[in-house]
Amino acid sequence: MKELLINTDEPYRVLVGRGLLRDMGQWLRAAGAPAARALIVTDTHVGPLYAQTVADALSAGDCAADIFTVPAGEEYKTPETLISICRELARLEYTRRDLVVALGGGVVGDMAGFASAVYQRGMRFVQCPTTLLSAVDASVGGKTAVDLPEGKNMIGAFHQPSLVVCDTGTFATLPPQRMSDGAAEIIKHAAIADEALFAQMRSEDWQRTPDDIVARNVAIKRSFVIGDERDQGKRQMLNFGHTIGHAVEAWSGYTLSHGQSVAIGMVMEMRAARRLGLSGVHEAPMVEALRANHLPVSTEATPEVLLRYALHDKKRQQRQISLTVLREWGKAELVSVELDDFLRFIEAGGGA
Amino acid sequence: MKELLINTDEPYRVLVGRGLLRDMGQWLRAAGAPAARALIVTDTHVGPLYAQTVADALSAGDCAADIFTVPAGEEYKTPETLISICRELARLEYTRRDLVVALGGGVVGDMAGFASAVYQRGMRFVQCPTTLLSAVDASVGGKTAVDLPEGKNMIGAFHQPSLVVCDTGTFATLPPQRMSDGAAEIIKHAAIADEALFAQMRSEDWQRTPDDIVARNVAIKRSFVIGDERDQGKRQMLNFGHTIGHAVEAWSGYTLSHGQSVAIGMVMEMRAARRLGLSGVHEAPMVEALRANHLPVSTEATPEVLLRYALHDKKRQQRQISLTVLREWGKAELVSVELDDFLRFIEAGGGA
Repeated sequence: MKELLINTDEPYRVLVGRGLLRDMGQWLRAAGAPAARALIVTDTHVGPLYAQTVADALSAGDCAADIFTVPAGEEYKTPETLISICRELARLEYTRRDLVVALGGGVVGDMAGFASAVYQRGMRFVQCPTTLLSAVDASVGGKTAVDLPEGKNMIGAFHQPSLVVCDTGTFATLPPQRMSDGAAEIIKHAAIADEALFAQMRSEDWQRTPDDIVARNVAIKRSFVIGDERDQGKRQMLNFGHTIGHAVEAWSGYTLSHGQSVAIGMVMEMRAARRLGLSGVHEAPMVEALRANHLPVSTEATPEVLLRYALHDKKRQQRQISLTVLREWGKAELVSVELDDFLRFIEAGGGA
Repeated sequence: MKELLINTDEPYRVLVGRGLLRDMGQWLRAAGAPAARALIVTDTHVGPLYAQTVADALSAGDCAADIFTVPAGEEYKTPETLISICRELARLEYTRRDLVVALGGGVVGDMAGFASAVYQRGMRFVQCPTTLLSAVDASVGGKTAVDLPEGKNMIGAFHQPSLVVCDTGTFATLPPQRMSDGAAEIIKHAAIADEALFAQMRSEDWQRTPDDIVARNVAIKRSFVIGDERDQGKRQMLNFGHTIGHAVEAWSGYTLSHGQSVAIGMVMEMRAARRLGLSGVHEAPMVEALRANHLPVSTEATPEVLLRYALHDKKRQQRQISLTVLREWGKAELVSVELDDFLRFIEAGGGA
């Protein structure tokens, strides 16, 4: 088992290892986060596989467990589902001294985390990511949210978990595409912060050592998040590939996954930055790593269409768009592009 | 105009005076909280009276203002109304750098404050209380919330305003009963913290100097809240009269107002504390002050019924109930009563 300390205002630990869910009660006590009661929030995909295991492990640790199952899928990441979790907590008369356990991927983590942030103005929660993507991404950082019809993650809270338990054995039940989605974020982390990890991602062999890979990614994300929990500075570097990626994702009507969209976004942003002299790093190794992990590297969307989606996404920003570019593999910096020059940037990212 | 500094982690000012709403733009700039855009959230009672005044004053200060009106009444303090505010912010493409202005009583303040706490994970808000009760109570402390069918204020956030502007001229349009509701909380503050203020509340003359009264109450509330924002210690003294008061309020099916219920609760808790030897202070002056302000001092509810409501309200607590008792007028302390002794406590609070 690997263990990392996340040094936010209220520090917490991330545990990474195969089979950890079977000993949840033990990890809670070891983390100094014992609770009399815990509501396990999970979804219709993950619940049948692991919820009873976690409930039994909590009970064995003197923590009475209830299970609440929400419908699986981003389309249910809504205020209505959020309120249903809060009402279940209220119906069962949970107090702010009790615990929420988020058991599932990023959607479950975002919603259960948000519910725990607002129920009785805040209770503790423990994150149990069961996808590679949520293990390397959403389980560090404290961002929780639900979507509105007007946009993704429009309401939410910054709320740090008390503990993250990442059982890498759960990845075995993931469909291949969801492993690829995680790979996209790993490649992003590697590109901006860890050249050796990037080299490793150029084949699929990394899947043989998921504990090591997850722990390294948690450490990378931690290095960008700590000291910038509210996303004002260096944390923005984690948006590498995301400016164009979000536009591609919205353009596709969310038929492309977040990981697939970010993959395309990284290639296009790198190519544009190179062609416009903002970066000296060639995107060819990126294309190779993404392809090795079954991720797309280009889109049919025209620059004009992508601009429209990107501007809608960024309208909240000022007259400039902040972009992450690579100085070299494993080192990134933020640059500003004038809004008026952004079409030219997207155009430069196209082609091959 | 009176001005008080509230020294939370992010300090803010409370301005108290007649006619202040007409210069909102000026106060925002003076408070170092300028904004390009502000959504004024108000209700169907207050909006027609003051929303346009505030919008004009903001525009005069180079802050573009929109108005969003929610239905008046505690029965609309729901997740649905909360989401409607957030969706309006999203529809109008507000950013986290913009502002929410809560214009109304405690219900509007709680909801608009909560919306600003979670929209894009947190934006600033300015509180403009238009009732005596919200001016002396809800505008200090940073508690925001909405109700669930399972209970009041069940979901919410701790979120401090950037500025509180209390225009005491707005009280002139309040029905008498809502002035009484405010008086109940003022009498509570006076009893636990300010003997001279208590003496003043034994007639209605205090209504001639609302600025002074509001400012003194804000200062009292500040003294209990600062350093205990999360309600773990001395802030609990503000619950004087509330343990039995909440039970009376729930028993009445909310036909008794919060102020009326707390009035009854203060008398009963004082009488019980005196009879059981927990306090040496007689409740007769309290009865006199409440009657002078047209507030009730007794209830038809039986002790057994009140116990049932009180236990439901307090089930979230441990084996003991924490109660505020007076050591002398203007000085309070917390005492613990065993849950098993609480029926005897309520019984001792009855009669005359």
